Amino acid sequence: MEPDLRAAFGDGVVLPGVAAFYLEDATEARGLHGRADAVALPRTTEEAAALVAWCYERDVPIVPRGGGTGFAGGAVPLDGGLVLGLERLTRVRSFEPLLWRAHVEAGMTTAAVRQLARESGLFFPPDPGAAEQSQIGGNIATNAGGPHAFKYGVTGAWITGLEVVVPPGRVLTVGGPFRKDVATYDLRSLIVGSEGTLGIVTAAWLKLLPAPEAALPVAAFYRETQAGCEAIERVVGSGIRAAALEYLDSGTLAASGASFPAPVPDGATFLVVSEADGSAAEAAAGREELLDALRDDAIGLHAPVDTGSVAALWRWRDGVSIAVTAQRGGKVSEDIVVPLERLREAIEGTIEIGARHDLPALSWGHAGDGNLHSTFLLSRADDGALARAEAAAGELFELALSLGGSISGEHGIGYVKRTQLVRQTDPATFALLTAVKDSFDPKGLLNPGKKL
Amino acid sequence: MEPDLRAAFGDGVVLPGVAAFYLEDATEARGLHGRADAVALPRTTEEAAALVAWCYERDVPIVPRGGGTGFAGGAVPLDGGLVLGLERLTRVRSFEPLLWRAHVEAGMTTAAVRQLARESGLFFPPDPGAAEQSQIGGNIATNAGGPHAFKYGVTGAWITGLEVVVPPGRVLTVGGPFRKDVATYDLRSLIVGSEGTLGIVTAAWLKLLPAPEAALPVAAFYRETQAGCEAIERVVGSGIRAAALEYLDSGTLAASGASFPAPVPDGATFLVVSEADGSAAEAAAGREELLDALRDDAIGLHAPVDTGSVAALWRWRDGVSIAVTAQRGGKVSEDIVVPLERLREAIEGTIEIGARHDLPALSWGHAGDGNLHSTFLLSRADDGALARAEAAAGELFELALSLGGSISGEHGIGYVKRTQLVRQTDPATFALLTAVKDSFDPKGLLNPGKKL
Repeated sequence: MEPDLRAAFGDGVVLPGVAAFYLEDATEARGLHGRADAVALPRTTEEAAALVAWCYERDVPIVPRGGGTGFAGGAVPLDGGLVLGLERLTRVRSFEPLLWRAHVEAGMTTAAVRQLARESGLFFPPDPGAAEQSQIGGNIATNAGGPHAFKYGVTGAWITGLEVVVPPGRVLTVGGPFRKDVATYDLRSLIVGSEGTLGIVTAAWLKLLPAPEAALPVAAFYRETQAGCEAIERVVGSGIRAAALEYLDSGTLAASGASFPAPVPDGATFLVVSEADGSAAEAAAGREELLDALRDDAIGLHAPVDTGSVAALWRWRDGVSIAVTAQRGGKVSEDIVVPLERLREAIEGTIEIGARHDLPALSWGHAGDGNLHSTFLLSRADDGALARAEAAAGELFELALSLGGSISGEHGIGYVKRTQLVRQTDPATFALLTAVKDSFDPKGLLNPGKKL
Repeated sequence: MEPDLRAAFGDGVVLPGVAAFYLEDATEARGLHGRADAVALPRTTEEAAALVAWCYERDVPIVPRGGGTGFAGGAVPLDGGLVLGLERLTRVRSFEPLLWRAHVEAGMTTAAVRQLARESGLFFPPDPGAAEQSQIGGNIATNAGGPHAFKYGVTGAWITGLEVVVPPGRVLTVGGPFRKDVATYDLRSLIVGSEGTLGIVTAAWLKLLPAPEAALPVAAFYRETQAGCEAIERVVGSGIRAAALEYLDSGTLAASGASFPAPVPDGATFLVVSEADGSAAEAAAGREELLDALRDDAIGLHAPVDTGSVAALWRWRDGVSIAVTAQRGGKVSEDIVVPLERLREAIEGTIEIGARHDLPALSWGHAGDGNLHSTFLLSRADDGALARAEAAAGELFELALSLGGSISGEHGIGYVKRTQLVRQTDPATFALLTAVKDSFDPKGLLNPGKKL
């Protein structure tokens, strides 16, 4: 198909050959690689729509691609077809800081969106990792979260409108630069988090917020998981509206503690990182409340107030995932969710599952949202480790469901969890999801093999 | 069908006859009445599911009913079938104040939900009107808003899980007591706002928030709409995160000003009501910022600080809709949405449309969200008024679309706007919405004639 596609769209859109870069995403760390027939990088929404139309006429699978930072294989082409990368759609179509609003194309990086807002005293709250590489379109496609989702909600909460290319090559606009809309079924929310299986997001209207004047983190170390989890529940129970409420377990602390921007107390096996934000006075008052709530049983506190030290703490937090990967070279990391009061069981259960499969296991994540990054470490030298880790992940999903939670809070289903969704949903609900998919994509060509 | 239904479910579930109450909602003010064959009030989700199954087998239309406070005719049975009222499903299934969480049945009134939260120092932010009568299930079915949606978002933002009866009589659970979920397509958001056309909500998991310690309103009067709209943009542009940002235009002020809890300055034709909330210190600081932003051009300010006066102001605001209705006995009121910078044009356009149809016209609403309640007053003595008002409403929807907005921000489509949706959506998108509807309700028996 590649010569025909090139003839139709030219070298300006169709890349020469298929570089390995376009066949992988962050699941490369667990060994996932794909195969594609061509890579196209449209420069406009119209080109993206024309590419989808071309493929749809010819039964060619289409795999949309943002920054390729996903952990579920959503951007990996499984079995040929076209990789449609959004990376050239990087325009800010409009920006009205006084109205807290921006209209941006899907290929803008999350970091660029946040910088745009910040330069006008605003902020775009979602802060998933890999901000320099991940794109806003991919954030929307996975409904990405991040540490500050605890107070501010996930990406979908900040999207008032979408421009989406849907089969058979049509540009669909849902919502817009207005803040409320109950005219139709909520197609906007349906597309958010649909991992490119219902349509390809090409642009979005974002809602922004005035940036908080100050954000003051409080980190607290504990000797035991239970003491840490009790501290987390004390923060919530005392009615503090923390901006973030994160945790790291023992294994994660072992992997990343050396670069923590303050001394890690001896015997620490659990870390809570919280933050208070708002006006300078509010943030300072919130910081005191956090210190009060976290102090009991803590064996160390780190609560920096100067800008540089605050930034250093979050920069360190951003690097935790990489530090964990560096332990053995590979990992299988899943993002289960549980009700907050089951957090301790999920953390301890992760380690137990790892032990049963002879794998080092650890977790960290968004404690306030009950959202764990439960991780099994892989050594490249251990040939059987990946298979054992996949089996362990299966048990992890069972654990999440048995605790009343869900198998994914951030990464989505993608390819790596495709067989798990049937465990979370009964056959009738699965049929309903399939019918929704068919409503958008009757030929099943949009990101096939993903999500469902 | 009624004798068969009674034989199957008994007098405990099937009401004797069909009282007029179950054939109307708030559209009674524009003359809408329906017809039904029976009214059933299930006492449990299982009974609700069995009723749906019974109807679905026999091709009997099912019209779900909450508090009947909707303005779109969503709860009005158009042409026979069963009215399925949720009013007996009023249990609090669980309430964990320390985890900011409640699991409540659909028939609880909004006021009861808010009181439950308040008694534990929490709050449920959505505050649509008619809280004593409207039910949480109906709020979910319409994705209801209210004044504080400006800061806190609409009902859907506070729902983490739903229990829904879907055809052919199955209980579907989406989400739950956990805060993040990207495992499936977002069926939760799809059902929220679907006006009982995809499923019947029987229970919901609510996310709650610690109640702000203080909320301090600032009301400001202006001589002209333009000055008032500029003040509204100043509030937003200055970066204040107001909890509410409401307006009343000249006609609304004339209808409701007599009971305003402070003197209304001579010559006032526009009122802005804003509020700052948070800790006592934050609210006080926010109040000063609001005063600063609203003061220019204001010909009167009312910024009460004692609890009684604050409550009196909001009680008055709650009564505005009734005061407007009382002017002539009837009204046609539509809830269009526009981008914030088009608010003045929408307010002035409403009056111009009324003038063209020889109807007194006015508007008030949620300025910060660009959400107007554009209203044409009806005198019962004027036989042709209703037809003229319906024509005027059609022009109003055209206006909303021409300003880049939507035909409904709060009330939904229901019956009264069913012919308007095709104006907002192109044929392919309408086909997509229909396919989504068919995925849930292939026989088209759930609230037929509504939404699509």
